[in-house]
Amino acid sequence: MAADWVEISGGVTAPQGFQATAVKAGLKPSGSLDLTLITSDVPAVAGGVFTTNIAKAACVTYNQRVLATGDPVRAIICNAGQANACTGAEGEEDNLAVAAMVGQALGIPPHQVLVASTGVIGKRLELEKFARAIPELVASLSPRGGDLAAQGILTTDLVAKSVALETLIEGKPVRIGGIAKGSGMIHPNMATMLAFVTCDAAVDPALWQNMTRKAADISFNQITVDGDTSTNDMLLTLANGQSGVSVIHEDTPAALVLQEMLHAACGKLAMAIARDGEGATKLIEVRVEGGETAPQARLIARTIAGSALVKSAAYGNDPNWGRIVAAAGRAGVEFDLNRLDVYLGPFHLMQAGKPLTFDRAAASDYLKTQDPVKIRLDLHQGFAVGVAWGCDLSYDYVRINAEYTT
Amino acid sequence: MAADWVEISGGVTAPQGFQATAVKAGLKPSGSLDLTLITSDVPAVAGGVFTTNIAKAACVTYNQRVLATGDPVRAIICNAGQANACTGAEGEEDNLAVAAMVGQALGIPPHQVLVASTGVIGKRLELEKFARAIPELVASLSPRGGDLAAQGILTTDLVAKSVALETLIEGKPVRIGGIAKGSGMIHPNMATMLAFVTCDAAVDPALWQNMTRKAADISFNQITVDGDTSTNDMLLTLANGQSGVSVIHEDTPAALVLQEMLHAACGKLAMAIARDGEGATKLIEVRVEGGETAPQARLIARTIAGSALVKSAAYGNDPNWGRIVAAAGRAGVEFDLNRLDVYLGPFHLMQAGKPLTFDRAAASDYLKTQDPVKIRLDLHQGFAVGVAWGCDLSYDYVRINAEYTT
Repeated sequence: MAADWVEISGGVTAPQGFQATAVKAGLKPSGSLDLTLITSDVPAVAGGVFTTNIAKAACVTYNQRVLATGDPVRAIICNAGQANACTGAEGEEDNLAVAAMVGQALGIPPHQVLVASTGVIGKRLELEKFARAIPELVASLSPRGGDLAAQGILTTDLVAKSVALETLIEGKPVRIGGIAKGSGMIHPNMATMLAFVTCDAAVDPALWQNMTRKAADISFNQITVDGDTSTNDMLLTLANGQSGVSVIHEDTPAALVLQEMLHAACGKLAMAIARDGEGATKLIEVRVEGGETAPQARLIARTIAGSALVKSAAYGNDPNWGRIVAAAGRAGVEFDLNRLDVYLGPFHLMQAGKPLTFDRAAASDYLKTQDPVKIRLDLHQGFAVGVAWGCDLSYDYVRINAEYTT
Repeated sequence: MAADWVEISGGVTAPQGFQATAVKAGLKPSGSLDLTLITSDVPAVAGGVFTTNIAKAACVTYNQRVLATGDPVRAIICNAGQANACTGAEGEEDNLAVAAMVGQALGIPPHQVLVASTGVIGKRLELEKFARAIPELVASLSPRGGDLAAQGILTTDLVAKSVALETLIEGKPVRIGGIAKGSGMIHPNMATMLAFVTCDAAVDPALWQNMTRKAADISFNQITVDGDTSTNDMLLTLANGQSGVSVIHEDTPAALVLQEMLHAACGKLAMAIARDGEGATKLIEVRVEGGETAPQARLIARTIAGSALVKSAAYGNDPNWGRIVAAAGRAGVEFDLNRLDVYLGPFHLMQAGKPLTFDRAAASDYLKTQDPVKIRLDLHQGFAVGVAWGCDLSYDYVRINAEYTT
């Protein structure tokens, strides 16, 4: 068994037994790819983590019901253009209709189809366009369709976000693939972070859901673009066992290897989302060490990465440790300020709660030239670590979000 | 007894028995007024509400210790220029030295002097400048010095913020005055919301602290400029009894009248701070009705007012109800989305959780021309109301916070 993984190509179709594709169904005004399908050749164990927003889109509550049954699934259909959120009972019916159409075209029961939507809130799904596009969509499914799928789920993201990793378990290759779209609420009502992860390991269903939740907690839940949580956010994970490796159970070496690779895959997608935040010019990584508990360290890291003042300072190349400390202090976690150390890249800015003298010009230059910019705190309270990622706050964030008027 | 109050002039020196002033002590690079003193002719009951940030400035922990004794105070000294936060034991000594200097000049014990600092974090107080300026400061105290004090506490606020109200209790005029400076973290490390309120009623000390906390909860704690909480935030309130009215006790008609007037004074100062947020072009008032509890309604209102997406939409004159609903949904309060009504000024945007058709051009024009912009939600869950105030997010916010490099 290998302790490590390597990066490979192929995205969500890198693991054995997955196919994917995307077509132009006319759902986006731009006319680009907007309907995406990912399928597993055999029933796959499914995991999911969903938005905590009370205003959940129809696809979110539908997927939650499907996953609650514990039954395996075969497909994920994702449309970009209409969020199908705040659409009431009609929205729920439309969502079921999409699952039924895809199920029929694939020859599987509708409840083996998970659904994801992103786009304008309050807009219903245009079912006739789905009906027209789904035959072509199914016909174009391919074990090399990962890159198309990565394109198809985008809204106003600047770049496609895709990852594929491979490790060895029982001497056989086991792969995880993933694609994601941005969490930045990039245009009015475009509001969604979506991530779809495929894996060809065979995993105990409860363990897979557990692994999915853990991976989300240290990756997607640790990025912040503007602090807003969408109505449609979701991570869906499928494990179909097509690698031929034995079923993986809790507390085994294989489970640890798979969990680490899942962490790595989700972490890479999460960082790619943060880097592609609206108007962002640089990625910011905040690492908090010496915490009492990991959730506390993560909360402090996330608060710093999400501070409008820290983000503005990063944009302005200002090594402003005062804003970092002020953000850490308001995170809602008790710690002794008189033990706090703060670092910016190689620069030690604060020691035991007091500012140090450092070369401001060189530190500003670090902010200007390094990507990611690395902020590190040591609380000296314990041994827990938390990492979060964000981006700087630029003029373009305001332009993108203000000047697009409905 | 009058049920109402009227606005009068005079700020913190409008109430009987208060004097104030400000001088140029050379603490600010700009050379403008930077050292402010407010005194009561007689010992006054003192109340206070302070930042919840763990990184509390020396003045915050000092004032908390003074107020914990329950003893009356005579003066508030406030410097603008150095925050005296993250300055360790030396910072605490410097703070005590300032209280001692002011106490000596006024002929009162040092612990009757409250201290407030605002400015650059990590910078110690320049005590020799205090020593040089304090004699002139004390000599210039005046019962008409309220406007000077309102100027002296500013950092990069665009306008001075002052209020004075008068009511009748036992047929005699009772007054409340107040001044404030902005909560926008306006320049790097300039981080402070300060408010000082004076009152010439005589009030039971525990009741006065209670009134102060209640007033802060629905005013200063309900404004948001960028979500950051400073190391130095504070509200200080002094009640000196010089109106000649009997001591006011809990659960009396006079207590209700005074509480209402204190709410009004703090609300006016809070709105003035939000309106003067960094780069703001308009004030946003969010009113949440039909909540189960007031704290829940206030939390939802504050989350909407603080949403970067709602703020950007307001700047862009975009009647984007989807962002309002998404922000309400992530506030952490359970409510039934299918009962939610949303209004923008006179426009009904959403009814029972579903979007309505409305005149988008007219709604955009409302956003362009009205100030404050009024957003109203009815949750239809109960009878509690919460109001919050914020400002729009403009290019200038980014410019102010990014382009000022240290």
